[in-house]
Amino acid sequence: MNLLVTLNANYIKPLKVMLASLFYNNAHRTFTIYLMHSSLTEDEVAGLAEWVGERGHRLKEVKVDPGCFKDAPILFHYTVEMYYRLLAWKFLPKDLDRILYLDPDILVLNPVDPLDDLDMDGYLFAAAYHDIISITEINRIRLTPYKIDAYYNSGVLLMNLARLRERIREEDIYEFVDTMKKQRIKLIMPDQDIMNMMFNPEIKNLDEKIYNYDARYYQYYKLMSGGECDMDYVIRNTIFLHFCGKKKPWKENYSGKFHALYKHYEKMAIG
Amino acid sequence: MNLLVTLNANYIKPLKVMLASLFYNNAHRTFTIYLMHSSLTEDEVAGLAEWVGERGHRLKEVKVDPGCFKDAPILFHYTVEMYYRLLAWKFLPKDLDRILYLDPDILVLNPVDPLDDLDMDGYLFAAAYHDIISITEINRIRLTPYKIDAYYNSGVLLMNLARLRERIREEDIYEFVDTMKKQRIKLIMPDQDIMNMMFNPEIKNLDEKIYNYDARYYQYYKLMSGGECDMDYVIRNTIFLHFCGKKKPWKENYSGKFHALYKHYEKMAIG
Repeated sequence: MNLLVTLNANYIKPLKVMLASLFYNNAHRTFTIYLMHSSLTEDEVAGLAEWVGERGHRLKEVKVDPGCFKDAPILFHYTVEMYYRLLAWKFLPKDLDRILYLDPDILVLNPVDPLDDLDMDGYLFAAAYHDIISITEINRIRLTPYKIDAYYNSGVLLMNLARLRERIREEDIYEFVDTMKKQRIKLIMPDQDIMNMMFNPEIKNLDEKIYNYDARYYQYYKLMSGGECDMDYVIRNTIFLHFCGKKKPWKENYSGKFHALYKHYEKMAIG
Repeated sequence: MNLLVTLNANYIKPLKVMLASLFYNNAHRTFTIYLMHSSLTEDEVAGLAEWVGERGHRLKEVKVDPGCFKDAPILFHYTVEMYYRLLAWKFLPKDLDRILYLDPDILVLNPVDPLDDLDMDGYLFAAAYHDIISITEINRIRLTPYKIDAYYNSGVLLMNLARLRERIREEDIYEFVDTMKKQRIKLIMPDQDIMNMMFNPEIKNLDEKIYNYDARYYQYYKLMSGGECDMDYVIRNTIFLHFCGKKKPWKENYSGKFHALYKHYEKMAIG
C-alpha cells in the first residue's frame, strides 16, 4: 500500500510511533511511504529512510520546492504547506492511482486491508467526519454560506489520485482561497476547511469509529453506540485512532484513555 | 526462568494475557511455567500447554491432590488452595532453587532480567508492598498484635525454594493457622496474611513501582514521586503491572488508565 505523510522536523518522533503501530498491526504487508516536505534536512530524511528500511518497508522522498507555490495566495499566518494535501496529486508519481494520507498523530490498531477494496468511483477523497454535536454545529455555522452536511476530518484521507488529476486544477484552488480572503471568511484549519468547502459532495463517507476514531471521545462513542463501541471494540476494530486536538500523547501531562497504549507503541518505535 | 502460576478454569484467559505480555517483552529468553492446580481438566491443561508451546516456551503441570492437605485446618469458606503459595516448595522439583510466582491479573511490561541476579541470601521471599497510606494502616490495625512494618503483596513473589525447604515445616504453617482460628483473627486474604504474619522479616523488599505497580494508583505514584513516575516511566521501567482489587480489566465496564493497554495484550493473547 502507498502512504503519504507530510511533516516538519517536530513531527519525526510521532511519525515513527504511527508507523511502528502500522507495521506491527500489518505484519502481512509492505508499505511505500511518500514523505512530502520542504524543510527536513538530508540527514533527517536519511535517518527516517533507514529506520523504515530496517523494518522492511520503503521511504520515498517528495521534496517540494516552495517556489512551486509562487502563484498561491497566502492566508494570514499560514505557510504554503497548507496546500500540500490539496495538491499532493501534483507531486506524486503519475502512475499512482490512490494513496492513503495519514496525520502523524495517529495510532494504527488493525489491518488496513479494507481500504484496498474501497470503491472510490466518482469520489475524490474518502474520509470520516466526527459526529460530535458541537463539532458539527460549530463548523456548520462557521463556514456558512457553504453548505456542509458533514465536516470531514482530513487526518485520514484516502485520495483518488487518478480522479483528482482529472477533476482539479491548481488555479481553481488558488482562486477559491482568494475569494475566501476577499470575503474575509476566517479559516481555522485551512486545508481541511478548503477541502470541505470545495469538495464536500465528492468525499466518500467512512465510519469514524473505524477510520478516524477521535481519542478524546471514548465515553461519547460508547454511549452513542449503546455500549457496543467499548474498549474491546476499539482495540479489535478501530483502524485509525486519532489524537485530535491540542493535547498530544507524546507531550508531558497528557492524560487520556489511550495514554498507556500510545506510550507502548512509542517504546516500540524509538526504544 | 522458572515461573509458577496457580489457577482454576476461570483464570485461563487472564493467564494467557499475562503470559503473552511476558513473552512479548522478554523475546530474548525462554520460560518454563509450572502450572499448579487441582481442578483443571486434562483438556484445559493440554490446551494451555499447546498454547505455551506454540510460543516457544514450556508448560509443566503440577497437579495437586487435595488429599495432600488432609492435616490442614480449614479457615472459614476458604479452600485448601490458600496453601498453594505457602507450600509450593513441597510440590516443585527438588532441583529448582528459585521460582517466580505471578498472579494472572498482571501485565509484564519489561524484561524480567533484573530478577536473575537478585541476591536472596537469608530471605525466603522477595516481594513489594503497596505503600498507599490507607492499605498500610488498615493492615497494621487489622493484623495487630502481629508486628508488620510492611504488608507485602503476594501477587509477585520470588521464592527462594532452597531456603524455604530448609526453613519451613508444613506443620508450622498448620499450627499457625490453628492459632489464628482460636484467636478468632479474621484473615481477609489468607495466604497473603499468613505470609506476612509468619515471615515478614524474611521477605526482601522490592520497589513496588517496578515489581508490583498497583494499576489503580497511577496518580498517587506520579504525585509521590514528584512527577518522575509518569506514564513514560511505567511503560519503560515497570516490570509487573498488577490489576489489584475487584475491578478487573477483562470484565465489562472496567475503566482505568491501563484499560487500552490490557485489551491490546488480550488481543495478542487470544486473537
